[in-house]
Amino acid sequence: MATVPLIEYEDASTEVRAVYDDIRNVRQTDFINNFWKGLANNPEQLRQTWEQVKAVMAPGTIDAMTKEMIYVAVSVANACEYCIHSHSAAARAKGMSEEQFGELLAVIGLAHHTNGLVGTLQLEVDEAFRV
Amino acid sequence: MATVPLIEYEDASTEVRAVYDDIRNVRQTDFINNFWKGLANNPEQLRQTWEQVKAVMAPGTIDAMTKEMIYVAVSVANACEYCIHSHSAAARAKGMSEEQFGELLAVIGLAHHTNGLVGTLQLEVDEAFRV
Amino acid sequence: MATVPLIEYEDASTEVRAVYDDIRNVRQTDFINNFWKGLANNPEQLRQTWEQVKAVMAPGTIDAMTKEMIYVAVSVANACEYCIHSHSAAARAKGMSEEQFGELLAVIGLAHHTNGLVGTLQLEVDEAFRV
Amino acid sequence: MATVPLIEYEDASTEVRAVYDDIRNVRQTDFINNFWKGLANNPEQLRQTWEQVKAVMAPGTIDAMTKEMIYVAVSVANACEYCIHSHSAAARAKGMSEEQFGELLAVIGLAHHTNGLVGTLQLEVDEAFRV
Amino acid sequence: MATVPLIEYEDASTEVRAVYDDIRNVRQTDFINNFWKGLANNPEQLRQTWEQVKAVMAPGTIDAMTKEMIYVAVSVANACEYCIHSHSAAARAKGMSEEQFGELLAVIGLAHHTNGLVGTLQLEVDEAFRV
Amino acid sequence: MATVPLIEYEDASTEVRAVYDDIRNVRQTDFINNFWKGLANNPEQLRQTWEQVKAVMAPGTIDAMTKEMIYVAVSVANACEYCIHSHSAAARAKGMSEEQFGELLAVIGLAHHTNGLVGTLQLEVDEAFRV
Repeated sequence: MATVPLIEYEDASTEVRAVYDDIRNVRQTDFINNFWKGLANNPEQLRQTWEQVKAVMAPGTIDAMTKEMIYVAVSVANACEYCIHSHSAAARAKGMSEEQFGELLAVIGLAHHTNGLVGTLQLEVDEAFRV
Repeated sequence: MATVPLIEYEDASTEVRAVYDDIRNVRQTDFINNFWKGLANNPEQLRQTWEQVKAVMAPGTIDAMTKEMIYVAVSVANACEYCIHSHSAAARAKGMSEEQFGELLAVIGLAHHTNGLVGTLQLEVDEAFRV
Repeated sequence: MATVPLIEYEDASTEVRAVYDDIRNVRQTDFINNFWKGLANNPEQLRQTWEQVKAVMAPGTIDAMTKEMIYVAVSVANACEYCIHSHSAAARAKGMSEEQFGELLAVIGLAHHTNGLVGTLQLEVDEAFRV
Repeated sequence: MATVPLIEYEDASTEVRAVYDDIRNVRQTDFINNFWKGLANNPEQLRQTWEQVKAVMAPGTIDAMTKEMIYVAVSVANACEYCIHSHSAAARAKGMSEEQFGELLAVIGLAHHTNGLVGTLQLEVDEAFRV
Repeated sequence: MATVPLIEYEDASTEVRAVYDDIRNVRQTDFINNFWKGLANNPEQLRQTWEQVKAVMAPGTIDAMTKEMIYVAVSVANACEYCIHSHSAAARAKGMSEEQFGELLAVIGLAHHTNGLVGTLQLEVDEAFRV
Repeated sequence: MATVPLIEYEDASTEVRAVYDDIRNVRQTDFINNFWKGLANNPEQLRQTWEQVKAVMAPGTIDAMTKEMIYVAVSVANACEYCIHSHSAAARAKGMSEEQFGELLAVIGLAHHTNGLVGTLQLEVDEAFRV
C-alpha cells in the first residue's frame, strides 16, 4: 500500500499529463507505472525526476541495457523491491537475455559476499588503488 | 586497521602461495592486494573465494569491465570503501574510460535517488512487471 | 507474516496490559499497533521499548512531528516497510501536511542521491567540517 | 582518497567556475567543499546537482535547518561519513543547537533500534496505517 | 513475485535433481524451498551455492544453531525478508528456543541502536581495539 | 573525527563519572572507550545506553561471546567501522578464538551473498516457514 494516492491520467492536471505523454512517447507504450503516478502528487518533482531519468538512462558511453543492470544492482543492495522489478523489466525490454540476468545475479551475489568479508576484515585500501 | 593480520607471500604456507601465484598469473602482475592477504588466514577460504571471483568475474555474456562496474555499484550501496576502490581500479584496468566512470557515477546516484523516493512512497509493484 | 505470535489485549498478562493501557492513555486511542503486540512476547522488552519511545519522541528542542519525519527518513534508508508506514501515519497525526510530506520525500530522495555520489567519489572530509 | 581528481577554482573551466561562484554567493562564503570539486569532473552533472540541492534544501514548509537534520539521518543510515560531517556542519550553520543535535542523535538511534526489531519480527503493516 | 521462474523437481534437469536430492538427504526432509528453485535456473550456480551453504553452515567451532542466528542478524540488517524467515525457521529447527529468539531480537535491536549512535557521532576507533 | 567533543573522566560531571565508574567496575578495566566519551555529552543518554548494553549483553540463554559475534554481524551489514572493531575486540576478550572468528567471517560473507541473490530473485516466502 502506498503512502500517497496514485494519480491516474484521467485525474491528472495538464502539467502532469504533459509528463505522462512524454513518458509514453519516449517509451513507445501507453503504460505508465506506479512510480510516476505516485510522484505526480508533486507535478514539479514528477517533471524533474522524469527529465533526470530520461537524460541519465539514455545510451551514452555505457549502453542503456547495462545502465538498467547497474540500476538493478544498486536496488538489490538497497532492498528496493519495486525498483528491482521495474529495472529488471526495463533491462529485459532493452535486450537483457536470461543468461545475462544469470550473470548479473552471480556478480551481485559475489559483490555482496566480498563486501561482507571486507567489512568484517576492515582492510586498509592498498596504495596501488590510489588514483 | 584490519581485524586480522595480513599474510605476506614470504610468510605464507605452500597452500596460500599457490593461490597467490595463480592470482599473479591470471592478473599478469606481482601485486597481491590486501583482500587476499586478509583471507589467507584461512587458506581454504582464500582458495574458494579466489576460485569464485575468477569464475564469476571472467568475461561471459556480460564483459569483464561491465562486471567490475556492477561490482562498484553494489559496493557503493553497501558502503564498502575498500571494495569501491579495488573494483574502480579493476574497471579502469579493464578499460573503463573517465567518461564511462562519470556515467556510472550518474546512474548510481540516480538509482539511490529513486530507491529513496520509492521507499518513501511504498509503491506496489505493477502487474506489468510480473515475469 | 510475523516471526512471532501477536499478543492481543485479552490474552495479555497484567504486565503487558499495563503497557498497553499506558500506550492507549498517552496516545488517546484504543488502537494498539502490531509492533507492540509482537514485542509483548517479552513483557520486559515491551515495557523498556515503550518507555524509550515515549521519552525520545516527546517534544523537546525538536518538536514531535519533526521527530516522526526524521524517523521516516531513517526507516526508508533501512528499508523498513512497517516503520515507514507507522511513522508516516504518526507524522500526519501530529500535523504533517501533504506539502510537508512532499518536501520530506524530496529531501530523502536527494540525500540518497548524494550519498550514492559521495560513496562513488570517496571524498575526504573537508577540514572545515571538523568540530 | 577520492576516486577522481578534485578540481580547484583556478584550474576550473568557465562553466565550473560559474557554479562555484553561485555556491559562494548563495552560501555567502568563499569555501567550496570537496563534494563540488569532485563533481566538477563532469560540469553538467555539477550544475544539475547544485541546482537540485539549492532548490530542495531551500526553506519551504519544512525549514532549512530541519532539512539538514533529515539529511544527517539518511546519511547515518547509509553510512556516508562525508555526508554526515557536511550536513551536521550545515545544520549547525543554520542554527542547530547542541541540545537539538543530542535529540537528533537519540531519534536516529531509536529509529535504528526499532527498525532492527521490526525487521526481526517481520510485522504486517496495520490496516489503520493505510492512507 | 519472483524475477525468475521457479523450477520444480518434476521439471528439473538431472543436474538440478541431483542437488535437490542432496538437499533432501542432508536436511532429512522432502521440502525444497523457493531459494533453490530460483537458483535452479542456473544449475551450476545452484550446485556451487548449495556446496558452500552445506560447508559453511555445518557445525564447526561455532555450532549450527548459532550460525543460523548470525545469519538472521545479517539478513535483518540487509532487510532480506525471505532470508529472515528461512533462517529463523532453520534456527528453530536446530533448537533455538523462543527465549533465545527473544534474546537474539534484543541483541539485533541494540546493535542497530548503537550502530546508529556511532554513525551519528563518527567516533574514531580506539587504539586499544587494534589487533 | 567525531561530530562531538569526547568527555574525559577528569572533565566529567558527577553523573557521568558514576557511569564511567560502573563501566570500569563491570568490565574490570580502567579503559573507557570513545563510544561512552561521545555519549557523555548527554549524561542521561549515556546512563540509559549503558544500562541497556549491560542488560542485553549479559549472558542469558545466549552466552556473552555469541552475543558479541551477533553484534559484529549486524555492524558489518550496517558498515559501522567503530562497532566492528569494538565488538570484535569484545568477542575476543570473551573467548572467541581465531578459528571461531574465521567461521564468523565465513557465515557473514555467505549471508551477504545469499541476501544479494534472494534480493535479485525476489523470492516469495515459503508457506512452510510460517510460524
